Amino acid sequence: MTKLHIQKPTLLLDPVKVQANIDKMAAKARQSGVRFRPHFKTHQSAQVGEWFRVRGLEAITVSSVSMAAYFARHGWQDITVAFPVNILEIEHINWLAQQVKLGLLVESAQVVQFLAEHLTASAQVWVKVDTGYHRTGIAWTAPEACVALAQAIEAVPQLSFKGLLTHSGHTYAARSQVQVEAIYRETVLRMKHVQERLAAAGLGQAEISIGDTPSCSLVDDLSAVDEIRPGNFVFYDVMQLEIGSCTEAEIGVAVACPIVAKHPERNELVVYGGAVHLSKEFIEVNGTRIFGYVALLEHEGWGPSLKQAYVSGISQEHGLIKVDNDTLDRLNIGDIVAILPVHSCLTVDLLRDYLTTTGEASIR
Amino acid sequence: MTKLHIQKPTLLLDPVKVQANIDKMAAKARQSGVRFRPHFKTHQSAQVGEWFRVRGLEAITVSSVSMAAYFARHGWQDITVAFPVNILEIEHINWLAQQVKLGLLVESAQVVQFLAEHLTASAQVWVKVDTGYHRTGIAWTAPEACVALAQAIEAVPQLSFKGLLTHSGHTYAARSQVQVEAIYRETVLRMKHVQERLAAAGLGQAEISIGDTPSCSLVDDLSAVDEIRPGNFVFYDVMQLEIGSCTEAEIGVAVACPIVAKHPERNELVVYGGAVHLSKEFIEVNGTRIFGYVALLEHEGWGPSLKQAYVSGISQEHGLIKVDNDTLDRLNIGDIVAILPVHSCLTVDLLRDYLTTTGEASIR
Repeated sequence: MTKLHIQKPTLLLDPVKVQANIDKMAAKARQSGVRFRPHFKTHQSAQVGEWFRVRGLEAITVSSVSMAAYFARHGWQDITVAFPVNILEIEHINWLAQQVKLGLLVESAQVVQFLAEHLTASAQVWVKVDTGYHRTGIAWTAPEACVALAQAIEAVPQLSFKGLLTHSGHTYAARSQVQVEAIYRETVLRMKHVQERLAAAGLGQAEISIGDTPSCSLVDDLSAVDEIRPGNFVFYDVMQLEIGSCTEAEIGVAVACPIVAKHPERNELVVYGGAVHLSKEFIEVNGTRIFGYVALLEHEGWGPSLKQAYVSGISQEHGLIKVDNDTLDRLNIGDIVAILPVHSCLTVDLLRDYLTTTGEASIR
Repeated sequence: MTKLHIQKPTLLLDPVKVQANIDKMAAKARQSGVRFRPHFKTHQSAQVGEWFRVRGLEAITVSSVSMAAYFARHGWQDITVAFPVNILEIEHINWLAQQVKLGLLVESAQVVQFLAEHLTASAQVWVKVDTGYHRTGIAWTAPEACVALAQAIEAVPQLSFKGLLTHSGHTYAARSQVQVEAIYRETVLRMKHVQERLAAAGLGQAEISIGDTPSCSLVDDLSAVDEIRPGNFVFYDVMQLEIGSCTEAEIGVAVACPIVAKHPERNELVVYGGAVHLSKEFIEVNGTRIFGYVALLEHEGWGPSLKQAYVSGISQEHGLIKVDNDTLDRLNIGDIVAILPVHSCLTVDLLRDYLTTTGEASIR
């Protein structure tokens, strides 16, 4: 990784780590006998998408209609938009439904009725179930509402009821494998509870789809479900490291940031690299907010994160890095450090373009 | 504001409010007899820049070399890059120095030496002073370091020492006019302390430049300084409202977000509009994190924010809005709400394009 190429905050992507992450998750899905429908919202990149395609993966997840259109234009034919249907985008949804095998998410009779009246091509429909995260979806404690909605879907000629979909985002608050496994087991029990009520109502064996990266990373046997939709695992980040979903060596992206000032009196470095590059996401460790870990560039990528160094503050373009005396002595204005992002989805969304550690730039 | 135009999260800009904000700040600068060098990092828009230009303003501030290049290409000829010189961008800095009257920020002898050796055209140089924010700059308590640096600058043929520049970003932690005024007075005293030492060392009357929007908004008479560089005031936001820098009616941008789900059991709405649209910036009020206020669209823009409604949570594309029963009854899936952003600089950086409340789309 020669620093000659880099002049300003730049997203670095390690293709070896990223492809190893894809291989590992694909192997687990295969062994568990579940469909692997990776979420592409983390990378949002046709080029990264190709690394999935060459491994034989054909089904993907996205979080917006715009993202679905982008990947449809890049040849993806089986796309679930894992976000409650936004009825205002019906024109684009109709275009998509004609182009690809489209999966949609609903959680209200109103939206099913809207689709019945306005959807001009066929789509598969998942019922969004809330198993405890409380962001959105029908509460798992109201299985009769899920049954009614599934029946309403089945009654619409252009819709087919596919199954139950959930996102156990509360695993992001977990801080150990044991905690994540407990949430996963609870999620499966709750989804199966709803699934059984659907079967009893004559709706057959509804599929179960789960999504969160912590569960998909930390649970060895995922065979209790039919489909997994992790996204963040492709890059991982400091938050996943904190949860325990990955090792640091598996984090596949970092932001190269030039050092622009040194403040030995308070053991701080200032880098060009702020909220518009990293996002304002932080983790809190013993009351201290951490906006990223810090590593040094090495010949092919970046090294292990520096002990006693972290991004302690962030404004629009500035990053503040707390360092120990040794690191302070080693680093100078004009040097570049690699910042491991707290939440890679947001960092990658901000920076978009990337440079691989083998020196190739992305093209959009 | 017809909602027919809007299908997904869209930055709304009220040109009447924005131009009134510009007029008010320009009038205050005129009355105080100080140079008004607005910071363009908040809007990053050539079109919004024109509203300053037609009012006779010619000097601007930006926070990156890239932003300087963008505005130079749009005809701006007097640009200060209010960010410590990033020596890795020297090629672009040289290009800029040939195109425009360029202002640079330094805080170390190393960077002055670098510029002496590599800068190929002339530039004005400000010494960055830390008056208490502790992000970056030379501590005001070390005036001899400022003197030495100013002398080093004056010794370089292509550099001219312009003055002392600070950003009292700690006003963002203030929550009243009295607190902001106290920080402003302290800032002025500290800057004048350094200024006097420079004069005593034969460096003449160095200019004093300040930047923060709270001080520039809440202090009536700014004549103690020579230049003001506020940026956020052009749009303001919930954070500035919380500080007291603006009224809600002065907030000039909002994000139109479609409602995609309703959860009456917990008084919540789900909107399409998340961290990739609003940023993850929040204010904390009595321990509650607030990611935005919520208003209804009206014929020409948006109305007053709804009491008992706020953005309570945010993920990549989802926003969660807490509402009271009345609001819950009034709003439905497919309706659009306007979210007043917590930090307009970050929201505008994320969304880039905007739609004015008079129906004109921005072009980039």
